[in-house]
Amino acid sequence: MSKAKFIVVEGLEGAGKSSAISTIMHVLHQHNVDDVVQTREPGGTVLAEKLRTLVKEEHEGEVLCDISELLMIYAARVQLVENKIKPALMKNQWVLGDRHDLSSQAYQGGGRQISRDIMSSLKQTALGDFKPDLTLYLDIDPEIGLQRARSRGELDRIEKMDLSFFERVKACYLEAASHDSSIITINANQTIEKVSKDITSALDQWFANGQKN
Amino acid sequence: MSKAKFIVVEGLEGAGKSSAISTIMHVLHQHNVDDVVQTREPGGTVLAEKLRTLVKEEHEGEVLCDISELLMIYAARVQLVENKIKPALMKNQWVLGDRHDLSSQAYQGGGRQISRDIMSSLKQTALGDFKPDLTLYLDIDPEIGLQRARSRGELDRIEKMDLSFFERVKACYLEAASHDSSIITINANQTIEKVSKDITSALDQWFANGQKN
Repeated sequence: MSKAKFIVVEGLEGAGKSSAISTIMHVLHQHNVDDVVQTREPGGTVLAEKLRTLVKEEHEGEVLCDISELLMIYAARVQLVENKIKPALMKNQWVLGDRHDLSSQAYQGGGRQISRDIMSSLKQTALGDFKPDLTLYLDIDPEIGLQRARSRGELDRIEKMDLSFFERVKACYLEAASHDSSIITINANQTIEKVSKDITSALDQWFANGQKN
Repeated sequence: MSKAKFIVVEGLEGAGKSSAISTIMHVLHQHNVDDVVQTREPGGTVLAEKLRTLVKEEHEGEVLCDISELLMIYAARVQLVENKIKPALMKNQWVLGDRHDLSSQAYQGGGRQISRDIMSSLKQTALGDFKPDLTLYLDIDPEIGLQRARSRGELDRIEKMDLSFFERVKACYLEAASHDSSIITINANQTIEKVSKDITSALDQWFANGQKN
């Protein structure tokens, strides 16, 4: 039995993360990985979910500063990593995350244009060297993704940002994927069946490769 | 009319911050400073008060990591500084704060022993060069302070820490005061009347000195 791994799904709103998670659960099962803890960010613990609510809701018109948003998301992430993800991995349970640190790099670093210095020092403070073993980045055209997200109903504070914001987020995701071999890019503009097929192939390949990239 | 200033009261639990604030308000009034915004930390805005609650309350037994606590306190501080303190100063309103950044340096840096590197990089990220014009640090023996705090009723999560924690907090306050001339140390082991007298003298001196230290 191989060591438990931490797999993350990333991507813009409407990229198909929920479907991707179902596909990944199915593929893991086929590879005899049945003990999988699912998480989402921001959130995933009692306190982290309360922070998620604070980040997403309005506060009587009070402006949420970009740096405050970033600090709250990292506070939630530390709670999740220390209280849920690391303990699960220690018990040899796999962890499948709906978003992780790369979302902050993309949304707060790329989207909100917080400096690289701040992003990297905060990441180091919060996570040290901890990182996912594998990230599947669902790469979608922002217009297509937002259209899908809108069709699902109410948009939250972040989903209401304009298109250029999401273009910067996407650019940041792609840049990260270009120099980190643990990030696999999946073309998420395709049909849900084709995306699912590509995810399955990528994961099968990863398993065939001894869970390395 | 001189430029509005940001004055902060710091000190351990039971050091007498509330009385000190009354005294300071009185002295400011005597110096014709009548437009004073009072704040407290963590807190002071709608969102920052919600973060204060999250920091102080229990979360179904979930461990609050030291770094998460620190990040939440800084998120609250950024909200307060950007949305309340800076706008007040811009409108030439003075600001009188019940705690500010020095509390984090003392409690999280000194008390929880979070590294100086992390403390200083986070401070820089959150506040840049923004700092109080004057800090009155009420220096009290932790045993005396805790006894006073206990006599007021229920202790919160932080007030329940052991004595050595508060000794480290006090040492950190004193060290900061020793190399920052904008921090004035007041002996808070004395009677409330004597403490009030010392605060009045220190402030009168500060005004006589052109609000410089």
